[in-house]
Amino acid sequence: MNYTIATIASHSCLQILKGAKDEGFATVAIASSKHVGFYKQYSFIDEILPTQSYKEVSALEKTLLKKNCIVVPHGSFVAYLGSDFDKKTKLPYFGSKKILEVEGDRRAQQRWLEKAGMRLPKLYKSISEVDRPVIVKMYGARGGTGYFVAQDKNELEKKLKANKTREDFVMQEYIVGIPIYIQFFYSPLSGKLEIMGVDRRYETNVDGIGRIPAVLQEKLDVVPSYTVMGNFPIVLRESLLPTVYAMGERVVEASKKLSTKGLYGPFCLETIISSDQKVYCIEISCRIVAGTNCFISGSPYSDLLFGEPMSMGRRIAREIKEAISKNRLEEILD
Amino acid sequence: MNYTIATIASHSCLQILKGAKDEGFATVAIASSKHVGFYKQYSFIDEILPTQSYKEVSALEKTLLKKNCIVVPHGSFVAYLGSDFDKKTKLPYFGSKKILEVEGDRRAQQRWLEKAGMRLPKLYKSISEVDRPVIVKMYGARGGTGYFVAQDKNELEKKLKANKTREDFVMQEYIVGIPIYIQFFYSPLSGKLEIMGVDRRYETNVDGIGRIPAVLQEKLDVVPSYTVMGNFPIVLRESLLPTVYAMGERVVEASKKLSTKGLYGPFCLETIISSDQKVYCIEISCRIVAGTNCFISGSPYSDLLFGEPMSMGRRIAREIKEAISKNRLEEILD
Amino acid sequence: MNYTIATIASHSCLQILKGAKDEGFATVAIASSKHVGFYKQYSFIDEILPTQSYKEVSALEKTLLKKNCIVVPHGSFVAYLGSDFDKKTKLPYFGSKKILEVEGDRRAQQRWLEKAGMRLPKLYKSISEVDRPVIVKMYGARGGTGYFVAQDKNELEKKLKANKTREDFVMQEYIVGIPIYIQFFYSPLSGKLEIMGVDRRYETNVDGIGRIPAVLQEKLDVVPSYTVMGNFPIVLRESLLPTVYAMGERVVEASKKLSTKGLYGPFCLETIISSDQKVYCIEISCRIVAGTNCFISGSPYSDLLFGEPMSMGRRIAREIKEAISKNRLEEILD
Repeated sequence: MNYTIATIASHSCLQILKGAKDEGFATVAIASSKHVGFYKQYSFIDEILPTQSYKEVSALEKTLLKKNCIVVPHGSFVAYLGSDFDKKTKLPYFGSKKILEVEGDRRAQQRWLEKAGMRLPKLYKSISEVDRPVIVKMYGARGGTGYFVAQDKNELEKKLKANKTREDFVMQEYIVGIPIYIQFFYSPLSGKLEIMGVDRRYETNVDGIGRIPAVLQEKLDVVPSYTVMGNFPIVLRESLLPTVYAMGERVVEASKKLSTKGLYGPFCLETIISSDQKVYCIEISCRIVAGTNCFISGSPYSDLLFGEPMSMGRRIAREIKEAISKNRLEEILD
Repeated sequence: MNYTIATIASHSCLQILKGAKDEGFATVAIASSKHVGFYKQYSFIDEILPTQSYKEVSALEKTLLKKNCIVVPHGSFVAYLGSDFDKKTKLPYFGSKKILEVEGDRRAQQRWLEKAGMRLPKLYKSISEVDRPVIVKMYGARGGTGYFVAQDKNELEKKLKANKTREDFVMQEYIVGIPIYIQFFYSPLSGKLEIMGVDRRYETNVDGIGRIPAVLQEKLDVVPSYTVMGNFPIVLRESLLPTVYAMGERVVEASKKLSTKGLYGPFCLETIISSDQKVYCIEISCRIVAGTNCFISGSPYSDLLFGEPMSMGRRIAREIKEAISKNRLEEILD
Repeated sequence: MNYTIATIASHSCLQILKGAKDEGFATVAIASSKHVGFYKQYSFIDEILPTQSYKEVSALEKTLLKKNCIVVPHGSFVAYLGSDFDKKTKLPYFGSKKILEVEGDRRAQQRWLEKAGMRLPKLYKSISEVDRPVIVKMYGARGGTGYFVAQDKNELEKKLKANKTREDFVMQEYIVGIPIYIQFFYSPLSGKLEIMGVDRRYETNVDGIGRIPAVLQEKLDVVPSYTVMGNFPIVLRESLLPTVYAMGERVVEASKKLSTKGLYGPFCLETIISSDQKVYCIEISCRIVAGTNCFISGSPYSDLLFGEPMSMGRRIAREIKEAISKNRLEEILD
């Protein structure tokens, strides 16, 4: 097998390249020059291509093409390189660029999830409509950075005014409940959807404020923020598995109207489950999520499906390997 | 070996049947018709018997008896089929029905735990006695659904009046501390108790309210609820292990006065540990708990005891296998 | 190989001795008499030496020397035996006693971390300087026992007056953010630093107060405490790994000015990450931490480095084994 798996050295790179090596691929990491030393300690990375800035990754394209690279995108990949890279690159790409574009546009994402029959938090079109606490989310895959809550219309207006960035954002009804993230893999080769793992994000500072008594919160002037710093592995109540599995299937099905191949490979449904056990889908990530890093040697869920340790990174590599051996590579590349 | 392990397709079914298959058993899942498709994807399930309603499971009894099934109960099993099934069924049953009955009756449970020398939260016999915040718990194994807190007698009265269900309940002193769940297996064959894992429940919405700043809580009119949606794997401070192990031993010992065989197989002590490191036992579950799903390929604790991945489901199957090979099956079935 | 690994039966003893056995060593646990029964169930412990009190451990020294024991210290080891033991003992000791002394003295620790270029919370020299909420921490490795917060100077004075213990303490600025603990191993043999795992402590009652609505907190008169009762396994955002790795390297480097061998073997950087993604180092533990118990069969991070399950306990044993085989034992013992 003459292919190399390549990705940007961040996010879930270690998992992706470890999985690729476990499946017999050569591996390449494209790393910011200052991180080359760090990544060098991992023996499953065959080569590290340094870059001064991710903006310059396209300069490496020739080298990557010569190595017969297949590129695996992840959250930082998407955030750093942006859709410009995706549009221009000639590198074989594991994932649907069109679907990633839809993911990046929160309103388009919302329409897709609605068509897939997800239960969604109310999305407000204008500030004047806002009649309850909302969470404001920026566009793009940036691990929750910049999200904020506003308890009512007034606070919302004030905070939006103070917020200097002029980015696109949406205003979502704040759902009281617990966040649960379900990691899926959809295989175009088998036509089957797999639950690969479940996690819960660990966000600063919102996951620290519960440790501050109410009386002290005021003193500290606590303003919640939602930047993802890590993840907890969890398991989901088994009686909910068929429910979330069906949600995953519907999302895949509905994606086929967005692009020919539709959504395939790894994705994640990001949910809040409320007191009355309603599963709200608050976001979808259409590529490998950082929560899969909890399961570098397999999760309780992948252990039920595979007779060996199967991370999401390895699952991707296995799909590519199978596609190569079955001469179906074009079905899983974009 | 000519036995089949069977259970209801929910709760910890996947773990139980995976473990049974790992130990060489045939496996059967009794699934709600609409979930058959979901369970079909797991290759370790040999057969899925569909049922329209769990009330009709007894109609399957003949089929299950013909397959030489041993039934393994779990939380949903107990909640769906109830004690009626337990009383009538002729199916060999891994677990003590009498003990499960005691578990289901919170006051009988309390008496047992008292006799076992557990430190227990105060249980109020009447509303008029209530002199501090309490948590109100319904009878039965339903994953915390319906539990609520009341900060004083007045609120308690109001909430009980508003609560339409006329179920049995207890009023327990609210203990400030952290919940920790210790998973045990008691082997009647070896006469030994094993610590198999430790988890912490993930409950909606109570595990979400810490993410809401105090000022916003009021706006959102947050009322805590305690429905278990998942579990976190955790480890316990090693200096507490001998303490909780002794608690487990005392509970097993005291159970022998409740039924001839007493408590055996999997059980869980559900504790709250307070600031002064006191371990309060708030509940006991006398069968496999969903928290063991964290450890489908073994936990840090089972890894200390076994040279191979040992989930609670597999541990059950191994006990049955050993009982068969030693002709001691009647000692572990009810 | 004729060596025995010995430690005190608490904290991370099970992990240490399991790891030692996996690497081929004989193993000895020194256990409080009442815990001997508990530790007996673990087959990887070859011998348990009972002691009435940890103060009397030195009485066992001859026995331990005869068995060719190498002692592995851990948190309870340090807390129970104290620096007196360290100074007097002739037992080969895996770890730098001088560095442990610096760890135990919070001001010396602070100076070291400053020299290593860590971002540190402000440390107040006198009560009168205190101008914001602070956390008060006692000296020594005691799992957070006795820590408390004060929201301002007045509360601080009141609480210090009420606090009867006359121990040394420091007053640290309270940082709003999320706690993340990074477990490292520095190998003097290879000269390399390894990230072995990441966890988050589970502290009573501070990790329980988020489950209490603000209105109820008042009623319950909740005062936060920080006694560690367990740990959650987590993973860290990959883009932060190079940052924390560099922090670990700087700490090791700076330690060489504190003692000839400097810091080696297992250590842990205890951080709080704030909203603006700043990594504050709030403490350092210069020996195996209890959070490594999450990873008795390896962590996502050790799985990236080793082709087999590698707990911190086993990593220690492997370093000792390699030192023996290379005749470099004196480089890793104190």
